[in-house]
Amino acid sequence: MSDAWKRAPLDEPIPELTTARLSIYLRCLDQLHAAGVEAIPSSALARHCGVNGALIRKDLARFGELGVRGVGYYVAHLRRHLRQILGLDRRTAVVIIGAGRLGSALAGYGGFRDDGFDVVALFDTDASKIGGATRDGVPIHALDDLPAVVDRAAVAIAIIAVPADAAQDVVDRVVGCGVRAILNFSPGALRVPAGVKLKNMDATLALETLSFFLASGPTPGKDT
Amino acid sequence: MSDAWKRAPLDEPIPELTTARLSIYLRCLDQLHAAGVEAIPSSALARHCGVNGALIRKDLARFGELGVRGVGYYVAHLRRHLRQILGLDRRTAVVIIGAGRLGSALAGYGGFRDDGFDVVALFDTDASKIGGATRDGVPIHALDDLPAVVDRAAVAIAIIAVPADAAQDVVDRVVGCGVRAILNFSPGALRVPAGVKLKNMDATLALETLSFFLASGPTPGKDT
Repeated sequence: MSDAWKRAPLDEPIPELTTARLSIYLRCLDQLHAAGVEAIPSSALARHCGVNGALIRKDLARFGELGVRGVGYYVAHLRRHLRQILGLDRRTAVVIIGAGRLGSALAGYGGFRDDGFDVVALFDTDASKIGGATRDGVPIHALDDLPAVVDRAAVAIAIIAVPADAAQDVVDRVVGCGVRAILNFSPGALRVPAGVKLKNMDATLALETLSFFLASGPTPGKDT
Repeated sequence: MSDAWKRAPLDEPIPELTTARLSIYLRCLDQLHAAGVEAIPSSALARHCGVNGALIRKDLARFGELGVRGVGYYVAHLRRHLRQILGLDRRTAVVIIGAGRLGSALAGYGGFRDDGFDVVALFDTDASKIGGATRDGVPIHALDDLPAVVDRAAVAIAIIAVPADAAQDVVDRVVGCGVRAILNFSPGALRVPAGVKLKNMDATLALETLSFFLASGPTPGKDT
């Protein structure tokens, strides 16, 4: 365990795959916590998370001395720390642009709320939807009201669920309101200025990746 | 251009980021084709796709001599080739497990159909849904009918849109029916045997990545 416990320099940028693994570790810790486990050796935690022990120790060592020699990790302590690192120790206000079926489905997804993300509003340009609400009671506003709502609710993240041809314009408006983190479900490549983080979840592209896998013959492997 | 045009050995595994870029190149070529462009130098295609020229030449060179010296790429020819490489030159039958809001929204998404993916059925365990159909007319079957439908419709890809605690069981059933490609929208880590490709689209995890970005201060960058 010795070397891996050393702290990595904090000014080193954290790769996105690492932060995705932190999320996975947190979910495993949630399960262990729910099962009443108080402490766990790093090797057992690694097995539980499906990663190797050296990797989990390296990932966690980036954030300081989170483990205890001879014990491993205290579940409640590490869980609290990871929630803090991931910014999940407070509520985050989220808006969804596009009150179509995907946007409405996302607005009603309880998993976001359980994790600290509150969908405070949807936005659309369809006059028949504006002024209404989803069946979970999330209000649907006109897109023109975006700046006011972002300001009032301190919105930190915008989810884009509009047709491809409207997506870049919507992203520009969202960025113009000062939102610095965007989760995009629309297909196609979008541009954001430096300092804004854009994460794409393009289901068609994902299907194409699977289609390529099927077309090119079996190569074992999974992707996270 | 010289070196990059050489063909890479075909037995070298293709990284997933490369296949994702092939999808992006194809979308650019679709746009160029629609705009009536017949041929394009690799540097101009690269600019259009937002990648650098050396990368696009290297990616495409993996699949043979797709470019023409002094011309670049013939749009229609390259487009046809990429569709073939990605397995999009034929229809692919897809099923969705979970006829909740997300599953139903995905079943109605026209972008899949336009791209060659036909959602032939949804599956659920809720007796009130079984035997019905989505508003787009996609039938909802009992999960027990999965093997019969997969067999009859030659289903190649399954999309998982069930609650987290049901996901592993559903994936095991899907794999048991011989489906080798899975797109998973449920949160949590799922296991698949070798030879099966699992692609995760976990929106909560994506929000956590954005939350981490916001919590750790501004670092410019986007992710695809």
